[in-house]
Amino acid sequence: MASDGLKDMLGRVRLTPVKKAKSILLGALANISIQTERCSLPAALDRIVSSNLFSPEDLPAHPRSTMDGFAVRAADTFGASSSMPCYLEIDGEVAMGQMPEGEVRQGKCFHIATGGLLPAGSDAVMMFEHTIPVDGKMIEVVKSVGVGINLISRGEDIEKNSPVLSKGHLLRPQDLGLLAGLGIAEVEVYKRPKVGILSTGDEIVPWSQSPPPGKIRDINGITLAALCERLGAEVTDYGIVSDSEETFFATLKRATNENNVVLFSGGSSVGMRDLGERVIEKLGNPGILVHGVALKPGKPIIIGLSHETAIFGLPGHPVSAMVCFEFFVGPALRLLAGSQPDQLFTPSIRAIVARNINSAAGRLDLVRVQLQEQENNLPLAIPVLGKSGSISTLSRAHGYFLIDEPSQGLNKDTQVEVYLLL
Amino acid sequence: MASDGLKDMLGRVRLTPVKKAKSILLGALANISIQTERCSLPAALDRIVSSNLFSPEDLPAHPRSTMDGFAVRAADTFGASSSMPCYLEIDGEVAMGQMPEGEVRQGKCFHIATGGLLPAGSDAVMMFEHTIPVDGKMIEVVKSVGVGINLISRGEDIEKNSPVLSKGHLLRPQDLGLLAGLGIAEVEVYKRPKVGILSTGDEIVPWSQSPPPGKIRDINGITLAALCERLGAEVTDYGIVSDSEETFFATLKRATNENNVVLFSGGSSVGMRDLGERVIEKLGNPGILVHGVALKPGKPIIIGLSHETAIFGLPGHPVSAMVCFEFFVGPALRLLAGSQPDQLFTPSIRAIVARNINSAAGRLDLVRVQLQEQENNLPLAIPVLGKSGSISTLSRAHGYFLIDEPSQGLNKDTQVEVYLLL
Repeated sequence: MASDGLKDMLGRVRLTPVKKAKSILLGALANISIQTERCSLPAALDRIVSSNLFSPEDLPAHPRSTMDGFAVRAADTFGASSSMPCYLEIDGEVAMGQMPEGEVRQGKCFHIATGGLLPAGSDAVMMFEHTIPVDGKMIEVVKSVGVGINLISRGEDIEKNSPVLSKGHLLRPQDLGLLAGLGIAEVEVYKRPKVGILSTGDEIVPWSQSPPPGKIRDINGITLAALCERLGAEVTDYGIVSDSEETFFATLKRATNENNVVLFSGGSSVGMRDLGERVIEKLGNPGILVHGVALKPGKPIIIGLSHETAIFGLPGHPVSAMVCFEFFVGPALRLLAGSQPDQLFTPSIRAIVARNINSAAGRLDLVRVQLQEQENNLPLAIPVLGKSGSISTLSRAHGYFLIDEPSQGLNKDTQVEVYLLL
Repeated sequence: MASDGLKDMLGRVRLTPVKKAKSILLGALANISIQTERCSLPAALDRIVSSNLFSPEDLPAHPRSTMDGFAVRAADTFGASSSMPCYLEIDGEVAMGQMPEGEVRQGKCFHIATGGLLPAGSDAVMMFEHTIPVDGKMIEVVKSVGVGINLISRGEDIEKNSPVLSKGHLLRPQDLGLLAGLGIAEVEVYKRPKVGILSTGDEIVPWSQSPPPGKIRDINGITLAALCERLGAEVTDYGIVSDSEETFFATLKRATNENNVVLFSGGSSVGMRDLGERVIEKLGNPGILVHGVALKPGKPIIIGLSHETAIFGLPGHPVSAMVCFEFFVGPALRLLAGSQPDQLFTPSIRAIVARNINSAAGRLDLVRVQLQEQENNLPLAIPVLGKSGSISTLSRAHGYFLIDEPSQGLNKDTQVEVYLLL
């Protein structure tokens, strides 16, 4: 039976194409409701807005000058030119940060700096550069100005009740600035998804320990935790669990009850794969969604759902586990964080493949590469090779490119899009 | 005199080209020594390694199988084929996570799973797929295998004392995994740079307050703090400082003593620009490095250095302040964090300009854009326009493209590289 399971995997009978696997996963998660919380503005960096936000006020609340110069009645300047200047009397000054006192009457003007409030009576700002001082009380105006020029009128920037940010928007530094400018001091955001992580395998010891012969240090626990943290998740470490079904099931069940997403990794052996599948089915409906995808590396992934908790059984090899994170866990976490499952525009750069690469038709191949700058050309994408399970290749790649399912490989000098592993 | 200062700025006499300004800044910071600290591995995510790291051990410490199958003596299989199989006796099994007991003798083999330690006597692994079980004790081998095939030998992944990560490397999740795998539990990293932020201007009130007429909420403080935090800096908020030279100088001096970088923003008025310049000069050598750059937006930036603290006087308009951050403060912070001042490969995507854009020759223009997906074509880059000082444009842009100094503009349908504001 174990051998049958293996044959199925290698014979590709049960392998699901990557796109289909992803759409099954995201479809199953689409209707899960996500809790929200209120968050003060400075703490809201990189959180996701959970409701549409509207402006509580007009911005600016009063018309303001956008230039250094003089607040004028535009009509007073009509027809003014170098050869036919007009003259205006300086009748006041707008103090920065103060409501202007008095009113600009016909034939008069007020000194005003950028940001100053337009005084009553004025409807335009004449730039310094188009005036010549006559004496301390009078200016010569050598250019006409139209109504509304060099000022920003009430509500012109943002009108009261107009939309500011939409549900699902990630709060970047500039978004906090925008909300601060509108006096929105607290914002409703989605709660961070909770992720539980466990590593399996009797050959694994915690990375902080010195492994006895035959055992190796756990690499996936810390890598997966850091990947989750970068996506804003709260991570709980459930440690290393033995391959015994009883212990494994008990820990996985606890983790499933306590989190929105559970990741377990390890168990490259056939027995362990079967165990992972069995245990997820035992956790309840809907159970296994996908078992095995047409992706290299990353083929043996198991994706399941127990009530509203997504469960991912990731390959033991760190590189494969990371690739599965990129393709499946990351998008699921983004969705459960209230965001877009895929970044709208994935950071990537064009590069040129440094040598011929083979690929099996029918599966998506992910080729990790180092990038090397070239003079007068796109960077060179040099494949990072290493035996299955090699950890030295883990950190050497700057990014990766993909070879599509139908393709049997790419030739040297082909242009590819390299997705950056930043 | 104030008018002279203004003329200089507008007449572009004193404007420094962006590249030159950046190289003056980074050159001045290049010799500043950065303090280091030891950091436990899980806390080291996104920190910068401050010394070259070497492997403390061979990895793997023992040869391991990379396939499920049988540990064999390769010579026993030479010449084996489907028509001329050879026969091997199963003489033992490698238990996962254990040192194998016994030795593989001539004509014999051991069961082994992926990751299992190679038993003494064996020098290759025969895949299950190339064997046919005869009975519980014997297999038929239908393919030969060479010495060293399907295994990873001692130190093949990483040799003891070989370089692992270089000084200046940013610790990504996969790098933590690599170090964990090698048992490197603590790592020496650069201390986070300390940044002090103050906003100036008598018209500014804290964003948490309701501004009286004539005043506006501080936007730059929270935006700049978040930008700094994203680059791993420790931020201290020195609040809003009045335009009086005495108060401003005292606060700036304190901030300069307590931080590696000080940012002040505001003061779009000529008087305030002069004040900023005067106060930086008063703080001591080397003083002002750059005042005014050929960049739009962002022209009126002041860059100074007092002993080993970089001081940036940023424009008051939030959009301009953010652009100056992108071009000058960010690279300086990266350098002072021990990293590359520029990201090796800046996340960007190609897009098509949606309409004609003018630019003045002699300055670098930064055009913020929204990106819009197009079917069967590159995304459309739609310029985000808004009056100087408009805050609604702050968060609308997905990224920006640049129009070089010599260019007077770009035509609709030109391909550009859009740098993403993620």
